Amino acid sequence: MTLLILDLIGTFVFALSGAAAGVRNHLDLFGVLVLSFAAAAAGGITRDVIIGAVPPAAFSNWWYLAIAMFAGLLTFWRHGLIDRMRRPVLIFDAGGLALFAVTGTQKALEFGLSPVMAALIGMVSGIGGGMIRDIMLARIPTVLKSELYAVAALLGAVVVTLSHVFSLPATPMMILGALLCFTLRVAAFRYRLHLPIARRASAANDQGSRRS
Amino acid sequence: MTLLILDLIGTFVFALSGAAAGVRNHLDLFGVLVLSFAAAAAGGITRDVIIGAVPPAAFSNWWYLAIAMFAGLLTFWRHGLIDRMRRPVLIFDAGGLALFAVTGTQKALEFGLSPVMAALIGMVSGIGGGMIRDIMLARIPTVLKSELYAVAALLGAVVVTLSHVFSLPATPMMILGALLCFTLRVAAFRYRLHLPIARRASAANDQGSRRS
Amino acid sequence: MTLLILDLIGTFVFALSGAAAGVRNHLDLFGVLVLSFAAAAAGGITRDVIIGAVPPAAFSNWWYLAIAMFAGLLTFWRHGLIDRMRRPVLIFDAGGLALFAVTGTQKALEFGLSPVMAALIGMVSGIGGGMIRDIMLARIPTVLKSELYAVAALLGAVVVTLSHVFSLPATPMMILGALLCFTLRVAAFRYRLHLPIARRASAANDQGSRRS
Repeated sequence: MTLLILDLIGTFVFALSGAAAGVRNHLDLFGVLVLSFAAAAAGGITRDVIIGAVPPAAFSNWWYLAIAMFAGLLTFWRHGLIDRMRRPVLIFDAGGLALFAVTGTQKALEFGLSPVMAALIGMVSGIGGGMIRDIMLARIPTVLKSELYAVAALLGAVVVTLSHVFSLPATPMMILGALLCFTLRVAAFRYRLHLPIARRASAANDQGSRRS
Repeated sequence: MTLLILDLIGTFVFALSGAAAGVRNHLDLFGVLVLSFAAAAAGGITRDVIIGAVPPAAFSNWWYLAIAMFAGLLTFWRHGLIDRMRRPVLIFDAGGLALFAVTGTQKALEFGLSPVMAALIGMVSGIGGGMIRDIMLARIPTVLKSELYAVAALLGAVVVTLSHVFSLPATPMMILGALLCFTLRVAAFRYRLHLPIARRASAANDQGSRRS
Repeated sequence: MTLLILDLIGTFVFALSGAAAGVRNHLDLFGVLVLSFAAAAAGGITRDVIIGAVPPAAFSNWWYLAIAMFAGLLTFWRHGLIDRMRRPVLIFDAGGLALFAVTGTQKALEFGLSPVMAALIGMVSGIGGGMIRDIMLARIPTVLKSELYAVAALLGAVVVTLSHVFSLPATPMMILGALLCFTLRVAAFRYRLHLPIARRASAANDQGSRRS
């Protein structure tokens, strides 16, 4: 039950991020709705196909579709509300990342996957929505470019995994994991935290690619 | 049986659209064939993986592969025939969209999905082929940019769904749905029909993105 | 057993190709690791989802993740080793292509698919890793642009298929198939071999697209 509610909230915020990216790229209404649904559903569909839970929740439960459409329409017609936020795509994206990372992990654990693999699937579920949104807009996905994106998803997933290993209560630990993930991700793009880049390697490689 | 025939015709026209896009992008023969097969099979594979019909029809039935290869070779060597059409990629794409939207809906209904979800899966099946074709060519998919693309797929899917709900005969209603979808889509790009774009929102957001 | 070992070596070299592409594109450490895992696991996940072997091997066996992470870290910190190779992405990519083409075919045969379809799935498994790597970097996948890429994968897959049809011993034939595929692919980009391009068609089409 908690799983479903958090999953639906994640669907809503990922749909908002997709819709905001669509409006910003001058898509028409239906393009915005397609991108809302794609961003909202991709993570969960990937998770469900991987763990064998077909048809995926997004196609067996009305709510996902309804919520994604509502978020898309809201963004389209009430863009004023969303414009007041400085970086709406990034913030909604961080929320979706956090929620899908924890629900993905929890659902994989319930389907009997081992804790480490459940955390990995949680991370993939969290990343999936933003990745398909960016690929559909012909951009390099945020997960590859951005500050601590996958690390944050992994942190949320690991909290849920550990709570399972130590038999802690699932609901509060899922909420804690999602909050940690969201906070780390927002702090990362607010303060431009990032992991090291292999600078000399890339310089050397650039020369290599000129040579070859 | 009708389902299989319409599916194979859809495969053929989507393969033509993929091959024509490949030739236009100066791919070599095998690149053209890969793009033919990807465009032709992606929608059906997505549909079958989602509804749990694995291995997907494209991998369990010879015909899909043979037809996609034939369409690719035909386009490659008889490009004169296709050049006489003004917009071959768009027209074949509209045909594939229409046929996969109705066969996707019908197959999902046969697998016991609810009518609304079957229509959604039909829409996704119709969109899938063109989407993977465009993503592989590093472009924003037609579905996000084009006039009434997803709306047309949904129209075809809804006709099939309603025929199921009211127990109408499946074959004529599938053909009707496909014709409506194809006509709407071709009319949309012929007369440049489209849904509204959130203009002020995008202007405001552009400012927002300059600020941030 | 041979299947698992070849699959893991393929995972390692595809992960190296993903990591090298990530370093070259100035991704940070975690971006490099995400791209390593995506390139390494995509082919096998696609194969396993298509043949119904869920959860896919990449999510049910620790080794895939560990090897992909190791390859990513190695590339990141020991880029000097990889810089000495002239075209590291292409060479590792050819190795992954060869190994996944043969293991994909063999696994599909073990799951009871027909020989022709098993070879097709082998080809898709081989192509998958490089395709997702390039799509995530917003590029046209190597398979569409490069010399004899899919042909090489198909050659490796066909060797395994024929060895199955004629009941030859699996292990040496898998190794032979992988070597043939790798050699053909490396020779193709070394000597710039490629299949014909539909030149006049593309010229005519360019005019068509200016007209329309």
